[in-house]
Amino acid sequence: MIRINKHYQKLKASYLFSDIAGRVKAYQEAHPDQELIKLGIGDVTLPLCPACIRAFEEGVREMGQEESFRGYGPEQGYLFLQKAIAAGDYASRGVSIDPEEIFISDGAKCDTGNFQELFSQDITVAVPDPVYTVYVDTNVMAGRTGEWKNGVYENLIYLSSGSQTAFLPPLPRQRADLIYLCFPNNPTGAVAGRDELTKWVAYAQENRSLILFDGCYESYITDDALPHSIFEIPGAKEVAVELRSFSKTAGFTGTRCAFTVVPRECRAFNEAGGEVKLHPLWNRRQSTKFNGVSYPVQRAAEAIYTPEGQKQVREQVAYYLANAALIRSALTDLGLETFGGVHSPYIWVNVKRDSWEFFDELLARAQVVCTPGSGFGPGGAGYIRISAFNSRANVEKALSRLSALRLAP
Amino acid sequence: MIRINKHYQKLKASYLFSDIAGRVKAYQEAHPDQELIKLGIGDVTLPLCPACIRAFEEGVREMGQEESFRGYGPEQGYLFLQKAIAAGDYASRGVSIDPEEIFISDGAKCDTGNFQELFSQDITVAVPDPVYTVYVDTNVMAGRTGEWKNGVYENLIYLSSGSQTAFLPPLPRQRADLIYLCFPNNPTGAVAGRDELTKWVAYAQENRSLILFDGCYESYITDDALPHSIFEIPGAKEVAVELRSFSKTAGFTGTRCAFTVVPRECRAFNEAGGEVKLHPLWNRRQSTKFNGVSYPVQRAAEAIYTPEGQKQVREQVAYYLANAALIRSALTDLGLETFGGVHSPYIWVNVKRDSWEFFDELLARAQVVCTPGSGFGPGGAGYIRISAFNSRANVEKALSRLSALRLAP
Repeated sequence: MIRINKHYQKLKASYLFSDIAGRVKAYQEAHPDQELIKLGIGDVTLPLCPACIRAFEEGVREMGQEESFRGYGPEQGYLFLQKAIAAGDYASRGVSIDPEEIFISDGAKCDTGNFQELFSQDITVAVPDPVYTVYVDTNVMAGRTGEWKNGVYENLIYLSSGSQTAFLPPLPRQRADLIYLCFPNNPTGAVAGRDELTKWVAYAQENRSLILFDGCYESYITDDALPHSIFEIPGAKEVAVELRSFSKTAGFTGTRCAFTVVPRECRAFNEAGGEVKLHPLWNRRQSTKFNGVSYPVQRAAEAIYTPEGQKQVREQVAYYLANAALIRSALTDLGLETFGGVHSPYIWVNVKRDSWEFFDELLARAQVVCTPGSGFGPGGAGYIRISAFNSRANVEKALSRLSALRLAP
Repeated sequence: MIRINKHYQKLKASYLFSDIAGRVKAYQEAHPDQELIKLGIGDVTLPLCPACIRAFEEGVREMGQEESFRGYGPEQGYLFLQKAIAAGDYASRGVSIDPEEIFISDGAKCDTGNFQELFSQDITVAVPDPVYTVYVDTNVMAGRTGEWKNGVYENLIYLSSGSQTAFLPPLPRQRADLIYLCFPNNPTGAVAGRDELTKWVAYAQENRSLILFDGCYESYITDDALPHSIFEIPGAKEVAVELRSFSKTAGFTGTRCAFTVVPRECRAFNEAGGEVKLHPLWNRRQSTKFNGVSYPVQRAAEAIYTPEGQKQVREQVAYYLANAALIRSALTDLGLETFGGVHSPYIWVNVKRDSWEFFDELLARAQVVCTPGSGFGPGGAGYIRISAFNSRANVEKALSRLSALRLAP
């Protein structure tokens, strides 16, 4: 009898953003004349920049000519892109990363979800709370948690990150083997300084833990003194893997390209406590279950690192950050307590009410879609996340609709 | 302590095609002046057809304009492509598949590797022998086998498919919960008729098993009377999932697009023996760990189903099949026993010697790369696989080099 993975049945009914999409769709069907403004899911709206489009088109053209056609590429990605990343994102910050330590993929969500496969089922896992749900759900599916009870999964370590600690998660009180960190944070917009990251690297060294560091919003850091990569912290290469994406950096949410950095030093352990390097393990996983990213897409991603591409994608990021500043300021004026939105496209808002109720009200009364904080875990209760990814005109329209409501508690 | 998934350590040192790539690279470095002809890995050589290129370019252009830009698409794929597949691959063969039963992905290797996640770790798994190694390796990684001993994995059911059964695997003697089938077969080129597939569907119904049916070489079937999909067999929708790819159909190995059909009727069971439908389970897996395929790539794939696209991709398939016929005939003339190559781009050759030894000799003496049969499991010992994916000129050159050697045992 073909039996299912019983751990799937522990999952709450649906993935957060599918859930939101369902409610939005129902509202739209009931009110086809209403114009919705979506500040919910963090999805970019600006088109791919001209430098990327040109390289993308050239890649497609190459695929149509016998002499330049490319079949299977390296599962790890093309060296031209690995080199561009190593130089543009790491060497430029004084961090030495070998191009072959960079694994190109079709999405950070995929890599985040897949990386846990490398580990034993009975390790302990710690996640910040609130948290990007993929970290949690993929560990539930893998059987590392118990049941969903009272709003949390049993046997999962929640690192409660509230406003009193600027939404920085505390060190775990029980030993955590695998730790997910995300800075600039999704959903809270919190950012970690050098001391903060140093504390985590020291923890991982001492406890022989591994940090999965989600740096997908790195390009939103506006202060050069802040670390842009966990590998700026001495010793991090042994204990951390870093996930990055072009989704928010360059508008690749529908184009699909990301990467994961697994330094050769990075280690885990076998049952006997002996060191096992993760680079060959992830390489094996990727060569067995993945076939690389579409060649023209990798060419488009490479163009991000040209001087022209850098200028253009930075303008896009600045555009969204200006939206974020507008949202922060308008919500503050409305009497709401806000966080994030400075080194992040997300504004985390204390609504002091049930966040799904607030979500529904915003949808019904202002036709604005946000993300209910409780979707990110118990620590998100009473908050909503507003995304700055939209056109200036739509952001302004949304804010003017909000100002007509009495939102403050 | 962060402990690794110990099952990874059961894997043989490397993935077959990485292994071959390593030997080829070493040979090339030692003999930089020699011109190699690669008939090993099944990788296409003809460029994308004009219909696909035009749609691909148009998709890229849309991504560069604000009004037509697309961010995150549905994780399951765009409806335009799901509909084109449902009509072009299924309705056209009298099979009714709802577009939403089709999940678009970036590769059949990925889906093949990921689908087993839906099942319990302690189910029994049966694979044909010889077999596409991804079916085996991904189950090893998931902990469903024992150790690698005497050339096989313990606790894996090998369905020995030799020349005496036309390389059709026999029904398992012990009960198998999950069964991998592939027709036209990789590596042997064998094809299954209606009676053969009916036998498997009946087995799966009786034993409450599930068939993962790999139909990636479907477009190479040249006889309309043969089933092109397992869903042409009555009752198959309850017990089978079908994997397809555009890699060999339309030269998408470097472009990346494939799909998996999970009929709504398709079921597995929970621990208590109750039925659980697989469609929502796979949907949950994909929405949690995958973010859909690049939009312009999906547009390129859609173009395969236009009349112009159909004509162009069928010409490509016919070109490779003509190569296959040349190879079969030349090897037969050389006194070698061959199989496949009629409804398949692969010719399976009985070399009656150690297949890695034959591989090395072919590389050293003729600078031709093949795939050693033993890489596909113990049942492949004494065979090699020759791929018809190359230019006519290269195939002819390779055959003339081979004819200069005394290859027959």
